[in-house]
Amino acid sequence: MSYNGADALADVLIENGIKVCFSNPGTTEMHLVAALTRDGRIANHLCLFEGVATGAADGYARMSGRPAATLLHLGPGLANGLANLHNARKAAMPVLNIVGEHAVAHIAHDAPLTSDIAGLAGPVSKTVATLTEPADIARVTGDLLRDIQSGVKGIGTLIMPNDVAWSEAAPDNQPAIEIPSLDAPDPAAVSQAAKALQTPGAYLLLGAPHITRRMQELAQAIAAKTGATLLAEAATARCSRGGGLPGLARIPFQIDAAIATLEGAKQAVLAGARAPVAFFAYPERPSALLPETCEITTLCPAEADVETALSVLADELDASIAEPQKLALPPIPTGPITPEALGAAVANGLPENAIVADESVTNGTSLYPACASAPAHDWLNNRGGSIGYGMPLAIGCAAACPNRPVLAVIGDGSASYTLQALWTMARAGMNITVLILSNRRYKILSNEMSKIGAGEPDENSDPLMDLGNPSIGWVALAEGYGVAARQVSEATELRKAISLAMATPGPFLIEAVM
Amino acid sequence: MSYNGADALADVLIENGIKVCFSNPGTTEMHLVAALTRDGRIANHLCLFEGVATGAADGYARMSGRPAATLLHLGPGLANGLANLHNARKAAMPVLNIVGEHAVAHIAHDAPLTSDIAGLAGPVSKTVATLTEPADIARVTGDLLRDIQSGVKGIGTLIMPNDVAWSEAAPDNQPAIEIPSLDAPDPAAVSQAAKALQTPGAYLLLGAPHITRRMQELAQAIAAKTGATLLAEAATARCSRGGGLPGLARIPFQIDAAIATLEGAKQAVLAGARAPVAFFAYPERPSALLPETCEITTLCPAEADVETALSVLADELDASIAEPQKLALPPIPTGPITPEALGAAVANGLPENAIVADESVTNGTSLYPACASAPAHDWLNNRGGSIGYGMPLAIGCAAACPNRPVLAVIGDGSASYTLQALWTMARAGMNITVLILSNRRYKILSNEMSKIGAGEPDENSDPLMDLGNPSIGWVALAEGYGVAARQVSEATELRKAISLAMATPGPFLIEAVM
Repeated sequence: MSYNGADALADVLIENGIKVCFSNPGTTEMHLVAALTRDGRIANHLCLFEGVATGAADGYARMSGRPAATLLHLGPGLANGLANLHNARKAAMPVLNIVGEHAVAHIAHDAPLTSDIAGLAGPVSKTVATLTEPADIARVTGDLLRDIQSGVKGIGTLIMPNDVAWSEAAPDNQPAIEIPSLDAPDPAAVSQAAKALQTPGAYLLLGAPHITRRMQELAQAIAAKTGATLLAEAATARCSRGGGLPGLARIPFQIDAAIATLEGAKQAVLAGARAPVAFFAYPERPSALLPETCEITTLCPAEADVETALSVLADELDASIAEPQKLALPPIPTGPITPEALGAAVANGLPENAIVADESVTNGTSLYPACASAPAHDWLNNRGGSIGYGMPLAIGCAAACPNRPVLAVIGDGSASYTLQALWTMARAGMNITVLILSNRRYKILSNEMSKIGAGEPDENSDPLMDLGNPSIGWVALAEGYGVAARQVSEATELRKAISLAMATPGPFLIEAVM
Repeated sequence: MSYNGADALADVLIENGIKVCFSNPGTTEMHLVAALTRDGRIANHLCLFEGVATGAADGYARMSGRPAATLLHLGPGLANGLANLHNARKAAMPVLNIVGEHAVAHIAHDAPLTSDIAGLAGPVSKTVATLTEPADIARVTGDLLRDIQSGVKGIGTLIMPNDVAWSEAAPDNQPAIEIPSLDAPDPAAVSQAAKALQTPGAYLLLGAPHITRRMQELAQAIAAKTGATLLAEAATARCSRGGGLPGLARIPFQIDAAIATLEGAKQAVLAGARAPVAFFAYPERPSALLPETCEITTLCPAEADVETALSVLADELDASIAEPQKLALPPIPTGPITPEALGAAVANGLPENAIVADESVTNGTSLYPACASAPAHDWLNNRGGSIGYGMPLAIGCAAACPNRPVLAVIGDGSASYTLQALWTMARAGMNITVLILSNRRYKILSNEMSKIGAGEPDENSDPLMDLGNPSIGWVALAEGYGVAARQVSEATELRKAISLAMATPGPFLIEAVM
């Protein structure tokens, strides 16, 4: 076969370092399948549902710093991936969606699968581009790849009509795009931040696509020197933790706890963080979480070089980094799997260099603080709030870091949105441990209902929060998708199961009955 | 608690005959949950994934002729439901989405779940309305419900900010909206159609949201009288079949077969049908399937009163309806479950008054023709082409027709998109038989790849079409969601399993190994 548009696209992807594609193709993507799989140049992971593909691309970007591609079938295929693209967008992760489209002349005929692909892509995408002829492929794709990796990173959606893919094309030897470097610190902002941090009631709020170990060491040093209170945003796309780092406290999710945590703030210095806002609006509660009287100083936005800004700030303040201190692990838990026991079991079970995808929702209250004492690991949280991201994210982490064990801790309600991820894990033999927190409830909803002023769940409304009728059998679901699994209901047993699963190659699911 | 916006919305829904809601709510929908579940006035079915809710609403509309509501959580919840809304839109089914939104003042704060809900809804919706104050709820909702049930029916998306739901409201005693009646036949169009049908090479193409028994009897009579060839559209939202009706041939899905079927057409008379188009574009193949020289006459569009138009046309032609003739069932099949054996097994297993949701894809070639000889039943096909609609659709059918057995025949690839539907079936004890056609392949893709000119699957591309590594265990998946199941691999056994499952209350899954 002659060189066609699909081949041209594959070449520009390879030239620009795209190594992985999470795929759920259809007829309109068959030329792309041929080109993207040829010679195994790009690793293609088939996903049984598109939300798995997009969540995996998010996880891949978090752990590699680079975009993966997704290959999606027309508007409905993209639509199925939108919720996890929403999450990736809120985490400022670069993702390249390649979405097949009907041949250009076919679109006007309004065939069954015809839809407004660009319209569907718009709300989640930083850039949407529709290819119209093979000669444009290298330029348009290069521009899009540059855009989604510049400034606030984001989602690029490339719509490829089938005839552009199948038409003859000429190889285009454009060099790889250059990604602009991160913005350097602004000296005036550093001085202002230094001044603000030295006043009473100062808070240093930390955020970034990746809160590195070094950033935390610098921020802790600055806080120690100035007496400022250090807090991270409520959810971080990736945070290095454990291995002697002091625990990094976060702004709580729960509205009253968040307000209480911040009520003493007179000065807030934002280092990659945004001024904190409530997750939801509640009657008689503010949306902005800092006190109205608090002054806000921006050291740098999240898309800047936050680490260097903190380094310059630490120099200006003459703050020096403390020696790492190994924190004591919590005692090995026994008895029922309470939220506290869960935290202790995971902290004691985490091996060195693990990656944790945290979708623990209501049962995770002790999980994050307890794991501060674990060996060095990375912690990933959802910044978009759309549940069903944990298992897909874990796939992306495993694809980016095949030698690191991955733990996905997921509420049972959240896990059902994208359970098809189990199959892709099984196929690739990824070392992912899926820990399902099985309380058989959308527990967060029963907590929230009265808090938001809608009364207590009653016999009529409770069935919309109850997952116990029938109980979901996670061991059976895992086995159905080829993943070995077991159910545990005791905390010591849980700790052992986590250690064993993470030390054993391949995926494993643990259903923790809570 | 005082009467609030959510109560006002519930009242207008009840006033306008909305009896069922398929729900996956979150914090922003808690007031709606309280109001929509109060006193059990509306039947709420919790779905573990939003695509189940929207597909169920599609099925409900097909079998009841009326819209159901869906209750969805913000933009990402709507996003997860878009693919099946696409299918409902293409089937011209009325669906009312109620989508919670943050309180109005909270939106500008760009909280994690903030997104462009109206932007996401636009591509699938006939109408999108955002409520801004409680006093508007009755009027805006009434207008939307009228619009989605008038002319070409469609999707209405009602965005309800949380503060509109929780704010005090006054009961509004507006009367129920009136739905305009269907357009009556145009005498000139009837005369033209009559003339066209009496010329050589005439084709009568039948389509409608519901191709009734009477419509088929009239169309068969007209075809018999004029010598015209009668064909239905490739996919019909609902078609009455069996019980003595002659088999209604359809335009094939496969492009070359479709062109061959229509190549003799000199005159095409459209009775509720659109001029047929190819499902996909293929190199060197036309998009429009009728010969270029074929003249097209429109008796009436799908949104008109097709049955009356056919009746007037039959009168004009003096065509009279033939006596029903019981067709002979195919012999009870034995041996491996080939596509032919599948058709025979289902035809012999279908009880009187069944509803069949057909998502059989490549293995369904014999299914539709074979079932013409079964007892009277309804046949539902996907008009939008987005796979993952069969199980959700079946839920809606069962909710609309609790006393009719439902059979969903689904390829294994299609079934994985929305398998969470099994749980909702189990919870409600719906009499749904899910028949999974387990060939462990996206077989349609291996068929299509060479047809569209992308070569044959090879060792690199085949893994993107292969579902056999690992094999999906449908019995385990069903049991995980509380649905009894068994695997069969022989045709006689399959027929028995279908009969037994459909005669037994509650859901049952059969994995047919093909």
